Amino acid sequence: MFCDNQPCPELFGEMEMVKSQSACTRRYLSSSELDGLPEGESFWIRARVQQSRVKGNTVFLVLRLQGVTVQAALFKSDSVTKDMIRFCGSIPRESVVDVQGGKVAATVTSCKVTTYEVHVQRIYCVSRAAPALPLLLEDAARPSEARDNVSVEQRADADSEQREVVVNLETRLNERVLDLRSPSHNSIMRIQSHVGQAFRNFLAARGFVEIHTPKLQGGSSCEGGAAVFPLDYFGSKAWLAQSPQLHKQMAVMSGFERVMEVGPVFRAESSHTSRHLCEFVGLDFEMEISESYAEAMDIVEGFVVTLLEELYHSQPLSSHVDEVAKQYPCKRLRCRHEAVDLLNDRGCTNEDGSKDLSTQLERLLGEIVAEKHETDFFFITDFPSGVRPFYSMPSSSDPSSSNSFDAYLRGQEICSGAQRIHDSSLLVESLKSRGIDPSSMQPYINSFKYGGSPHAGAGLGLERLTMTILGLDNIRLASMFPRDPKRLSP
Amino acid sequence: MFCDNQPCPELFGEMEMVKSQSACTRRYLSSSELDGLPEGESFWIRARVQQSRVKGNTVFLVLRLQGVTVQAALFKSDSVTKDMIRFCGSIPRESVVDVQGGKVAATVTSCKVTTYEVHVQRIYCVSRAAPALPLLLEDAARPSEARDNVSVEQRADADSEQREVVVNLETRLNERVLDLRSPSHNSIMRIQSHVGQAFRNFLAARGFVEIHTPKLQGGSSCEGGAAVFPLDYFGSKAWLAQSPQLHKQMAVMSGFERVMEVGPVFRAESSHTSRHLCEFVGLDFEMEISESYAEAMDIVEGFVVTLLEELYHSQPLSSHVDEVAKQYPCKRLRCRHEAVDLLNDRGCTNEDGSKDLSTQLERLLGEIVAEKHETDFFFITDFPSGVRPFYSMPSSSDPSSSNSFDAYLRGQEICSGAQRIHDSSLLVESLKSRGIDPSSMQPYINSFKYGGSPHAGAGLGLERLTMTILGLDNIRLASMFPRDPKRLSP
Repeated sequence: MFCDNQPCPELFGEMEMVKSQSACTRRYLSSSELDGLPEGESFWIRARVQQSRVKGNTVFLVLRLQGVTVQAALFKSDSVTKDMIRFCGSIPRESVVDVQGGKVAATVTSCKVTTYEVHVQRIYCVSRAAPALPLLLEDAARPSEARDNVSVEQRADADSEQREVVVNLETRLNERVLDLRSPSHNSIMRIQSHVGQAFRNFLAARGFVEIHTPKLQGGSSCEGGAAVFPLDYFGSKAWLAQSPQLHKQMAVMSGFERVMEVGPVFRAESSHTSRHLCEFVGLDFEMEISESYAEAMDIVEGFVVTLLEELYHSQPLSSHVDEVAKQYPCKRLRCRHEAVDLLNDRGCTNEDGSKDLSTQLERLLGEIVAEKHETDFFFITDFPSGVRPFYSMPSSSDPSSSNSFDAYLRGQEICSGAQRIHDSSLLVESLKSRGIDPSSMQPYINSFKYGGSPHAGAGLGLERLTMTILGLDNIRLASMFPRDPKRLSP
Repeated sequence: MFCDNQPCPELFGEMEMVKSQSACTRRYLSSSELDGLPEGESFWIRARVQQSRVKGNTVFLVLRLQGVTVQAALFKSDSVTKDMIRFCGSIPRESVVDVQGGKVAATVTSCKVTTYEVHVQRIYCVSRAAPALPLLLEDAARPSEARDNVSVEQRADADSEQREVVVNLETRLNERVLDLRSPSHNSIMRIQSHVGQAFRNFLAARGFVEIHTPKLQGGSSCEGGAAVFPLDYFGSKAWLAQSPQLHKQMAVMSGFERVMEVGPVFRAESSHTSRHLCEFVGLDFEMEISESYAEAMDIVEGFVVTLLEELYHSQPLSSHVDEVAKQYPCKRLRCRHEAVDLLNDRGCTNEDGSKDLSTQLERLLGEIVAEKHETDFFFITDFPSGVRPFYSMPSSSDPSSSNSFDAYLRGQEICSGAQRIHDSSLLVESLKSRGIDPSSMQPYINSFKYGGSPHAGAGLGLERLTMTILGLDNIRLASMFPRDPKRLSP
């Protein structure tokens, strides 16, 4: 390792592999620290080489650190030898380098940093990338109408003739580590990360206790009707939780009045759509209510409004939203409080008798509401009991209807919730009416025998919500390492 | 439903089941709002009946709301009939009731609220508990040396002769919903909830991005040596992640310089000990480093110090810690910065040649360090490579040693971390030396081929950490619904 307090054999070269050799005093600046540094001071940065271009006796590098690109330049001089120029020009893209340099005012158009460049004094290669990458960041970052139809394999031809190479989704997901380095995809994941945190923060501020329920489940697997992944558990039959539903209700019965969970849920459904995953992150909450599931709807609405406010109006989130929109243009969402809940009459779900709303009908409804009421967010309530799970509380006035709600954003269902049955006898009745043997879920039923407090709750999908807010056309783009019936890697 | 704006047929009785009938204007006070209310004002609360005692023409109830107990009383009068007294006295324990009443100054010794009681004006039963409970809260709350030896089944005899009934662990866990209503067990889970949040908050403030890695894994299952749960994934072989290790490293390579995750990890180990679970919550982070794994140790130390500070010195956490200590007495931990890292020489791990530290040796070491250096927190570093996973970076000076560390608290290992190998060739070499076929984990290896930045990380177990801080003798007490080789329910 070359340290500042040791003589350096060369001004450039391969660095010995970093292996915790020393507690060296070298301090690397972050991109924001670099911004704040006065000209003339020498500094160190560690960055990736995004591009390099040799022009006679000059090398221009595009360096990337913390997602920010800055131009670096070497000019042949007494200290900068021809060998050093050659070394620099031959560093493969995406390699990690240590650079000592100084800031010089300049007008740069090809980088995020536009007002200065870095004049390189020393440069060492920390980790050399393979010379050929499976995809190029500039290709991964290119917006395209046809981005799902053209494969990256066409690049060889394209490079010579036309520059409009795009990367298809399969290639992106196969090479996810590189794909996520492109600005918009990196921003999508930072936004997704915030969505989960915003959910927890909003609920924690309202007295919700964060819980962690088991994903390994025994007993019956009939909870919601969704297909489950079975597995062997030390000789017993087990399965992966398709939601924290039963346990979050049990947590409320355990003396935690309001609970929330952010955790994985598993669906063994062979759905090959652009908005389903076999593993996703559930945003779940459950709460005691005084009287009505409207109390849970208030929580959902408050969260969505707060989240949109943060994403659109606070930094650095707003910049990330803009970054994504460069590649995936979409309209910003409107969420008018006065319009919320405007479909709260039961007429609108019963059109086709007993079935759930179809995806097309959802979209159509979304368009009508958006046009008429200038909001992209609304609820539909009081679904027929037949299309809701057994634990949904029936309406007091019409037992064939349930005290349930779905929330819609941009014409997509993003949230499903309801008042739950808190009476063990009614629960047993509901199970039997659906042909489910109550003895298969006795501990769950028992938890309502020791005084069942009225409660309601809801669940959202982190990736679905992120996708919908950003107007992405595929949910896989909103999952870091997505899982679908055909994808279990990387 | 009886509403304030409707005439009430009676001053007491069974309430119609809450089914979102109305958006009634009745407001229920929380326990803290009740505290702040002036005497004389009439109010509503919804609470559980923890105890009831009839004394002639008087009923005394212990009501519990948000974990706080308050005494309520009814005295026979013109409005309080004998029927009302009888009704009140016969409400089973743990039932949920709506009470309208007024505060009256009183000295109460048997409740948390000691300065006033509630004089009941109206009372309705919202949800009636079964008359016989599988365990009583007062039994569940009783501290006992022998608490794991005596079964709750002895209560029948005990009730008459001796009051010192205790509840054994099996009964507790079988009846977890009731057990968690007891003050110390409720507090344990609230503390556990905070530990996870404190981890995320500490790291988020230091630039760590929260990620969600897939729990469904394909390819090789050799990651850490721990046994895995296999399952069928649409005809392919899959298994449950035994840690987010590989994916969190890939996330760092994806352009997220510092990442963290709080999520479930699965271990199919048939360990029947007091400190292992088959499913627990992992607190994981991974970060780019300038030079040394000491940078990751700083994060671990900073987190533990901050966490203890919060638990011991901020409300309501400190009260929860005190509540737990009533039932599970233990010494508070000391964490002296100057003593940290004092065993940072490799001598101490090599005593028995190639094996890891034994549990007994860990405890002994903890005692010695505590006595000599007045700290309950320390690191051991530079474990032999043979006892660490394949992805651990070997030491530059001695390849048989690794750039690794464990953190100890109260003589228990609570954290394991290391610098990781960021060079794909060295990684392949390490895999081969352990007899693992590199082709089985190609996407992981590939992620270091596109410029591998030096990085380190660590993982902690949420339940283990909670258990250790609180000095509990069994990790199951620190898990809401624990999973061990014999327990998959509730």
